[in-house]
Amino acid sequence: MYIELDGQGARYAQLIRALKAAILESRLAPGSRVPASRHLASELGISRNTVLAAYDQLQAEGFLLARVGSGSFVADIGNRPLPLRQQAAPAVVAPLSAFSRRALAISDGALIPGRQHRDLRFNLQYGLPMTNPALASAWRREINRASERAEFDYPDAQGLPALREQICDYLRRRRGVEATPENILVISGTQQAFALASRVLLDAGDRVVLEDPHYRGARQIFASYGARVLGVRVDAEGLVPAALPKQASLAVVTPSHQFPTGALLPLSRRVELLEWATAKRCWLIEDDYDGEFRFGGRPLAALKSLDRDGRVIYIGSYSKTLFPALRLGYMVLPESVGRAFRAAKWLEDRGSNTLEQAALAHFMASGGFERHLRRAAQSLRARRNAMLGGLRKHAAQVFEVVDSNAGMHLTAWLRSGSHADCERLAAHARERGLGLYTVAPYSLQSGARPGLLLGYAALPPADIDAALRLLGRCLRETGLLANR
Amino acid sequence: MYIELDGQGARYAQLIRALKAAILESRLAPGSRVPASRHLASELGISRNTVLAAYDQLQAEGFLLARVGSGSFVADIGNRPLPLRQQAAPAVVAPLSAFSRRALAISDGALIPGRQHRDLRFNLQYGLPMTNPALASAWRREINRASERAEFDYPDAQGLPALREQICDYLRRRRGVEATPENILVISGTQQAFALASRVLLDAGDRVVLEDPHYRGARQIFASYGARVLGVRVDAEGLVPAALPKQASLAVVTPSHQFPTGALLPLSRRVELLEWATAKRCWLIEDDYDGEFRFGGRPLAALKSLDRDGRVIYIGSYSKTLFPALRLGYMVLPESVGRAFRAAKWLEDRGSNTLEQAALAHFMASGGFERHLRRAAQSLRARRNAMLGGLRKHAAQVFEVVDSNAGMHLTAWLRSGSHADCERLAAHARERGLGLYTVAPYSLQSGARPGLLLGYAALPPADIDAALRLLGRCLRETGLLANR
Repeated sequence: MYIELDGQGARYAQLIRALKAAILESRLAPGSRVPASRHLASELGISRNTVLAAYDQLQAEGFLLARVGSGSFVADIGNRPLPLRQQAAPAVVAPLSAFSRRALAISDGALIPGRQHRDLRFNLQYGLPMTNPALASAWRREINRASERAEFDYPDAQGLPALREQICDYLRRRRGVEATPENILVISGTQQAFALASRVLLDAGDRVVLEDPHYRGARQIFASYGARVLGVRVDAEGLVPAALPKQASLAVVTPSHQFPTGALLPLSRRVELLEWATAKRCWLIEDDYDGEFRFGGRPLAALKSLDRDGRVIYIGSYSKTLFPALRLGYMVLPESVGRAFRAAKWLEDRGSNTLEQAALAHFMASGGFERHLRRAAQSLRARRNAMLGGLRKHAAQVFEVVDSNAGMHLTAWLRSGSHADCERLAAHARERGLGLYTVAPYSLQSGARPGLLLGYAALPPADIDAALRLLGRCLRETGLLANR
Repeated sequence: MYIELDGQGARYAQLIRALKAAILESRLAPGSRVPASRHLASELGISRNTVLAAYDQLQAEGFLLARVGSGSFVADIGNRPLPLRQQAAPAVVAPLSAFSRRALAISDGALIPGRQHRDLRFNLQYGLPMTNPALASAWRREINRASERAEFDYPDAQGLPALREQICDYLRRRRGVEATPENILVISGTQQAFALASRVLLDAGDRVVLEDPHYRGARQIFASYGARVLGVRVDAEGLVPAALPKQASLAVVTPSHQFPTGALLPLSRRVELLEWATAKRCWLIEDDYDGEFRFGGRPLAALKSLDRDGRVIYIGSYSKTLFPALRLGYMVLPESVGRAFRAAKWLEDRGSNTLEQAALAHFMASGGFERHLRRAAQSLRARRNAMLGGLRKHAAQVFEVVDSNAGMHLTAWLRSGSHADCERLAAHARERGLGLYTVAPYSLQSGARPGLLLGYAALPPADIDAALRLLGRCLRETGLLANR
């Protein structure tokens, strides 16, 4: 018998693996006697105790049988040459679902492994968290505090009651939304809201309306569930109600700060939108992803505050107000869909992480959260001003910049040129160490206006200045800006 | 104009709500002038500044228009009597999906809000976490350590690389499973594994095989996705391969410790099961929910260690080895389905919570996790012995107890009687402050054997003794045990 150790891990484990392989591959036939431990030990240059221990384990697992006085024998476990052995690992052993086929096509490898920006000097990617040492230490204190009072049992699948109460209080004061803790569902980030909505509200083939351009993650999840995604035109005032389709099951809107154009939907359009939804028996999701960070004027009340017949599902996220690693957000659910969403969340994962929920509830109750929001808004304002100033100085001839007065990003539209020009610029910039991203992936129509989506949250003003000087150089080097 | 404040929250917010309602309900008509601030203030008994601030806000939001020198006017926002106002909130505003209808029927209210056991003196519910001060303080240290090094950006959706490495090392040493970090997907608990598998592997109407009895959470999620759930018989040695159906897309098995009977699937049946799956092109999910806690003999290698053609998806949970509030588990994915599961996880929630993953990676790397497992196994052994002893002493005439030699629960089968007898006993016991649970919900067939599922992890031995004395009294009081 030929037994070879693979050299990985402890000798004992190596020997067990090797013996199992020999038995399963019928190199050790059923009923045959295994080598005496003494011989095998000397053959392999290992201790006899190791061999005995391995034989013991294989007996316990049923691979070997011990007969008193005559050593160990290979058990008959159907170890005729296994049919499983005869085929090499095939590409797909059994069929995958329609969901899988769509999800694989949509996510397409590149999107899954996460960001690859570690080697960039400056990264203007949207969604990177703000560097914020004050928040880091405040949050550390909250986590440590919460961990002293940690619960060990399953969480409330709907969300920690104390957190849901804080969310209601916050929404009433800051977003004009009236909700009770019973209406709140705590979720693992905005993405899960779209996933739950796909399951609870949509069957395959149903129509979903997205603003065009829009948040790509929403499009991807709805499409993976087999929904038909329709775009609705956006202008300088946001979604154009007249462009809404004749029929749809669900529309996702960003009235407080259209993503990515930054438009603020005026009240008359809000009312038109609600009327359209009522007429079409269509659900509305209001994605209020960064409605908090408004630098001029007061934050406006949410669309949800106008919702009289329980048609608007409001989504709040902590990925922008705090940071993405937290993986927490919430939904405000009309009564008619509350039970279905709670059931879907409970079926999916039994509720979001308890410790962070407890930390967040206390952070909100103690006033720390809103103190942080005020400081963050100041810091974002300085970054936005640096971004606006830099764009005007280095890129105004090439890009038209929309000042959105809110949020963590700006859009810059190419004055003349194509998507290909933007891609060429972004590719060149990346070689120079500048992470630059086009708006194209956020559009359904290839005919949408070419431009850049510029995130400014993650960089201090001085870095933004430097990044935009570098952008200016890239514009000249790519010929988009004539050299003077 | 009649304006009434609702008395909830700040005056300013109350006034804004009241004015918005009046405008939306056309009590304040478009183009009409709003009352002078001075008058409204005196009428409502609030300060004039509050009224002015509210008017300002309503202007910013587009509800009012200011005309220089002549005060504020109601804007025309389509505030003809809104159609939304005319219908009272209906039960369901727009249709829900087929998933919702199934999920609502399956979860049926009672299961969602979580456990209601706070008022019980002794609770023998399965799945309650072990009371464990040593673990609590060790985990607190890990969380605090991890929070000092916290990442703020989106996590790796597949799971923290350091944690995936630890899981591979652990699986190789303790479960005989060979995997690389690329094969591991970190998830938010076992429940999410079943949810992801439903989406990735199944279309509505596909057949899923569950052992009967089985873990109810698995049945619920598969059924909510519209799968056809088939049971396969279980005997004292676990799943009976001869009883497997002619065709299925997926089978979920618990070979290391059948849930809930506690049977250990012998090697020959494991091989038969794998051969059946190969012949039927059927996926297998191995739910190794508590394979670690084995009190006699060594832990056996997982079924996954025999998987030669990438057919077995292995699920590990930290809800039993650590505690449920952690909401972390992992899957070992064959290469052919790795991308599809990673895409499904990424689409669902962008990855599980980073902080706990980092804490767990260090807890495992430092040896703390396995030290905890050794201590927990000792503690569980004492609790199991108390449970076995108590059952023999107080209930042996009524129940046949299966000593499973592993895990955190025992099953006790009614020697003679019906499911109704068990339910009656459980109801009576609950009135006496003893939480007692029947196995009936874990079976597909109503003809399955009646019995109890007795969790012992959460109670110290003295409490288990007392609980079983109370059980004996309940048996006499319900007439299941003749009074002597």
